[in-house]
Amino acid sequence: MTSTSSLHTFLHPKAIAFVGATERSVWSNAALASLRTLGYAGKLFPVNRRGGSFHGIAAATSAEAIGEPVDTALLMVPADALDDALADLQRAGIGNAVLLSSGFAEAGDEGRERQRQLTAKARSRGLRILGPNCLGFVNFVDRSAVWTASLREPLPAGTLGIVSQSGALAGQLSFMAQVHGIGLSRMVSTGNESDIDIAEVIDYLVDDEHTRSIAVFAETVRDPQRFAAAAERALAVAKPIVVLKMGSSEITAQAAQAHTGSLVGDDRVFDAMCQRLGLMRVRSIEDLVFTAAFASMTGPFQAGGLAAVSMSGGMCEIFAERAEEEGLVLTPLAPATETALREVLPGYGTPQNPLDVTGAAMLQPELFGNALEALVRDPALGAAIVVADVPNAPANDTPLNRAVLAQVSRGLAASPVPAIVCSHYVMQVSERSRELIAETGIRHIACGIHHAMSAAGAVRRWSETLRRRQAQGVAAAVQATPPAQPLRSERETLDWLSQRGVPVVPVRLSRSADEAARFAEELGGPVVLKIASAQIAHKTEVGGVALNLQGADAVRAAWQTMDARVRAARPGAEIDGILVAPMRQGGLELFVGTVRDPQWGPALAVGLGGIWVEALRDTSLRLLPVTPAEVKDMLAELRGARLLDGWRGAPAADRDAIAEAVAAIGNAALALGPELVSLEVNPLRVDGATVEALDALAVWGAAD
Amino acid sequence: MTSTSSLHTFLHPKAIAFVGATERSVWSNAALASLRTLGYAGKLFPVNRRGGSFHGIAAATSAEAIGEPVDTALLMVPADALDDALADLQRAGIGNAVLLSSGFAEAGDEGRERQRQLTAKARSRGLRILGPNCLGFVNFVDRSAVWTASLREPLPAGTLGIVSQSGALAGQLSFMAQVHGIGLSRMVSTGNESDIDIAEVIDYLVDDEHTRSIAVFAETVRDPQRFAAAAERALAVAKPIVVLKMGSSEITAQAAQAHTGSLVGDDRVFDAMCQRLGLMRVRSIEDLVFTAAFASMTGPFQAGGLAAVSMSGGMCEIFAERAEEEGLVLTPLAPATETALREVLPGYGTPQNPLDVTGAAMLQPELFGNALEALVRDPALGAAIVVADVPNAPANDTPLNRAVLAQVSRGLAASPVPAIVCSHYVMQVSERSRELIAETGIRHIACGIHHAMSAAGAVRRWSETLRRRQAQGVAAAVQATPPAQPLRSERETLDWLSQRGVPVVPVRLSRSADEAARFAEELGGPVVLKIASAQIAHKTEVGGVALNLQGADAVRAAWQTMDARVRAARPGAEIDGILVAPMRQGGLELFVGTVRDPQWGPALAVGLGGIWVEALRDTSLRLLPVTPAEVKDMLAELRGARLLDGWRGAPAADRDAIAEAVAAIGNAALALGPELVSLEVNPLRVDGATVEALDALAVWGAAD
Repeated sequence: MTSTSSLHTFLHPKAIAFVGATERSVWSNAALASLRTLGYAGKLFPVNRRGGSFHGIAAATSAEAIGEPVDTALLMVPADALDDALADLQRAGIGNAVLLSSGFAEAGDEGRERQRQLTAKARSRGLRILGPNCLGFVNFVDRSAVWTASLREPLPAGTLGIVSQSGALAGQLSFMAQVHGIGLSRMVSTGNESDIDIAEVIDYLVDDEHTRSIAVFAETVRDPQRFAAAAERALAVAKPIVVLKMGSSEITAQAAQAHTGSLVGDDRVFDAMCQRLGLMRVRSIEDLVFTAAFASMTGPFQAGGLAAVSMSGGMCEIFAERAEEEGLVLTPLAPATETALREVLPGYGTPQNPLDVTGAAMLQPELFGNALEALVRDPALGAAIVVADVPNAPANDTPLNRAVLAQVSRGLAASPVPAIVCSHYVMQVSERSRELIAETGIRHIACGIHHAMSAAGAVRRWSETLRRRQAQGVAAAVQATPPAQPLRSERETLDWLSQRGVPVVPVRLSRSADEAARFAEELGGPVVLKIASAQIAHKTEVGGVALNLQGADAVRAAWQTMDARVRAARPGAEIDGILVAPMRQGGLELFVGTVRDPQWGPALAVGLGGIWVEALRDTSLRLLPVTPAEVKDMLAELRGARLLDGWRGAPAADRDAIAEAVAAIGNAALALGPELVSLEVNPLRVDGATVEALDALAVWGAAD
Repeated sequence: MTSTSSLHTFLHPKAIAFVGATERSVWSNAALASLRTLGYAGKLFPVNRRGGSFHGIAAATSAEAIGEPVDTALLMVPADALDDALADLQRAGIGNAVLLSSGFAEAGDEGRERQRQLTAKARSRGLRILGPNCLGFVNFVDRSAVWTASLREPLPAGTLGIVSQSGALAGQLSFMAQVHGIGLSRMVSTGNESDIDIAEVIDYLVDDEHTRSIAVFAETVRDPQRFAAAAERALAVAKPIVVLKMGSSEITAQAAQAHTGSLVGDDRVFDAMCQRLGLMRVRSIEDLVFTAAFASMTGPFQAGGLAAVSMSGGMCEIFAERAEEEGLVLTPLAPATETALREVLPGYGTPQNPLDVTGAAMLQPELFGNALEALVRDPALGAAIVVADVPNAPANDTPLNRAVLAQVSRGLAASPVPAIVCSHYVMQVSERSRELIAETGIRHIACGIHHAMSAAGAVRRWSETLRRRQAQGVAAAVQATPPAQPLRSERETLDWLSQRGVPVVPVRLSRSADEAARFAEELGGPVVLKIASAQIAHKTEVGGVALNLQGADAVRAAWQTMDARVRAARPGAEIDGILVAPMRQGGLELFVGTVRDPQWGPALAVGLGGIWVEALRDTSLRLLPVTPAEVKDMLAELRGARLLDGWRGAPAADRDAIAEAVAAIGNAALALGPELVSLEVNPLRVDGATVEALDALAVWGAAD
């Protein structure tokens, strides 16, 4: 039995046992109320050591005593009775249990130990556990549940799946979805995740034909690999996942801090993972539910711009502002579209995008339909969004509003691109609204323009990730083929990079002042001397760098001075010699650094160099490997990106050449294997089409 | 009669005329329906050239023929009948008219001319005009209106005033407010503002005792001075104004572009104005209504942090994340508060902020009340926000929810700081909710945590502006006392700055190589030579700068070379001589620049110098004058602010000294009078406690 099918039985129970059921417990009663609200048609077996009955149903004295197959059990027993209860479940042949109790991993060290023991025991008895410290699950499609909090009617099934580590929050999400007319398929609260975690539930929902989009609330990701794999599978079938994730885990932040200072702080690595796998990350409960519903209605946007339509100039302006904030392009209309619109609009109307169909549509609603019909045929569009409210109360259930809706439906009926209708502001969706939406057949979401544009922005980014995957594939995985010895010095690191296709400044190791002078002569032009020692990371501090040396005498003198000064400053250091490299001036300096995130693996940051990377934190981050195309996106994200275009007469930087070099640095870091903590190229010098690594540093696990 | 009292009669009509009323017009009918919905108790006079009747009311053939005083008229006449209609109003002694028609300034040049003529005629006939191209106004308190679009019941009066240039948007705002239980006082749609503009309406609402907060939708601000004055008056009485303003006006953006390149682009000057006057700027319809309602309920926050309370750990995490995004401080609790909370919370609860009262409150709601009572007494708090839903439908109108609400009410009853209760997510407020809210006496807003925290962030900033005004007052206005001749050269500008208290590098004008060598000797240390010519702005390009000259010979040689090179490069330029200044090295370079915004007047930008100001646009902007305290806030806003704290061993910059110098530069710019286009000090060098202007440039209007 695969893990997925085990979850299937768990979440589709036809026979449920409430172990520890008693009418005096709010949890028992709430779980029963949930089943009644759903109209559960399966079997329910209360279990209570002392027998008796639970709301008129005779209780078995043990699970074993039920004597019939049971799919899923709700465990409501005190901590000291848990062992016995698990053994009882095993004897009864019950494989799935929801564990409500708190006081486990969330309650400090002792609780963590209690949870570790629980996990081990459950595993040894072949039990899958949801929880502890969770509220259970609801299967809205198949009308079953082990849910120990309230459910609110009406509860029509829909296509949104909810996975949440917080039970209370899952409940709020379901309430919110309901009042906005968004039906749910399944809802699972995973709690402490002693066994079943959000990744496994997501993986299950990816295959669930009743679930068309997935909303996730996560405080932490316990199994990053499984999480990423589930996201990858969702991307492959274009099933949208929207995530409201709380800030970075302590461990990631601390590790990042320790390894690369503040460069990879916060939860930017999680963002990079979302970016790579097309997860839509949001910041509010509203956006979590609305974006998931929106994405399931539109599916991926086609390539092209967005069209926005309203009956008010003010709303069109709000559209335009929000589009800019969300990086959405409101495509200019093709001449043919303009001509077609001019025939439809009143004289004072303007055929443009966003399109104001004008107040004239209040007198002639068919104007709205005609305008939409003309607009959605524009060849440059990838999606369309229209503002129109669906009546939800007698006060707005007017003939005019109904007529407008019918026209919007007609105008969008033959749309060749995904088209969705949103309300002006966040509204509730009544039974009457649901009927009207069903009658007109439109895709309608009552989330208001603001949240609709947040959703549209997220869907656009997800759609681009999908398209890029299809067109370019993923950067090929790089086999780790680390060198025999960890790279210990600047020169070894630069050599390694050079062998891996990274352009590197020519640098030679001199053992004497004379040798250095000869190298300098061969290089021609002014040179730089740098002390070569694996034990000296900060060369400048010990006088280990000399710049702009011209002529053999200057090189010789500097060599002697440096050698003496460094040996005096660091008497114990093993010194390999002194590096001689050509002096480079002008151009731009980039910073390229990799870091191994303990959760998500190797990532790469690019930024403009100097102290500004650290002071302004103007870096872009991706998980490795990266393709050159991805690196070009990263460069475009930098706030200082325009410096690359030739600032104040400097030649424009060759972004293709940078992208090739950075991708090669990323691959070189991967090839160094899991012992590598970080690989920094700082600076990567760029001067027009010339790109060169001037310095490099590899940090290894052992060096920590 | 003052302008304000004229608006009073306009917006409180006891007798209204509908000029051009006909039952065939949707506008006429809508205006009548509005009056009926409101239960208007005043007089209504239909006017129609052909007489007849309008919904059973006999129509007068002209306004004059009414023969009774009329306060406000709705004009619904074709363009060619407008002149006659205005003359008729004058004869009838009617002083106020709402003009619905479009086809004026919004419809191109011809329309603009039409509007200009309309304005002139109305003025000559002593008429105040609302519109054209507007939907009118509604007075919810006094149950009167000239409103030509739909109103939806129920329409209880409240305390939110709405002013909107877009009529359709005003309507949507009123609908949105209604379904969220937010009552309105007045709503005015100003349209093209041929006469009455948003500034005048805001000014009116500042004095309106029925209006406790003001929501403004603006596409443009036509009278910045009046707008700022109204905002200033609102600030003086702590009446909150929330603004949803569309992007910068073309003219501002273009002018800013022309004068200072990209430094003051977009609508950052409007932001600076909002910042100064405590206007709360928002980005969505939802935040516009919710923030205005929120602020009217809490009033200004007290100094101190925010406490956030919920019954779910997940919600507490969302609170914490949103607080960080909004710059809200969730104050750590005092030991006494922790002790008090520990006595109340269950064993597994933690006394912290945000406070999770835990699911135990579902079993014992009084726990919630006790915890709040203990929490709000914490001395470090300035405000508190609690999540709890008010039942709005049978599905959530449970005894538990009502008990929780009662406990929240009890717990907050004696709160010494402003305390507000918000819903978990955006919810509608039903009649039942209104009853419950009234019963418990809590301040409740059903906007959800996300929007509530946006509002809390805005209210905090507004409260700080209020407090700062009270504590420190406003920077004193600076009298313009421009020099006899506009400052034409670097030296004149530096001298002027120096006279105005700005620390300036000692610089002397040499007329010969020998003189320069003597100056250099007197200064001691290496010097810089710079060509002195009002006609040469970019000195480097013509070889007009020589750095780091040591000794008399080097100075003399550089002088001769520069003199010759510049004369060759710019044969026509008038050259005053060559400036000699001490060479400064190390330290940080700041950019300080002023600009005269055509709408909002002189503003000042500060940023870290070099190309990074322009490449990263890391500048902070304020309207002038600024106090040193404000400059310190500006410095703190810079992304690169940490460079000021001593980066990599450099001494920390003296922020007080910088603040004094920058405020002095701002005052110096103001003293130069309105002919000054911009004054740039670039760089203002900072090295520990040493702050010095190294170069300065004044640009004058005539130079454009």
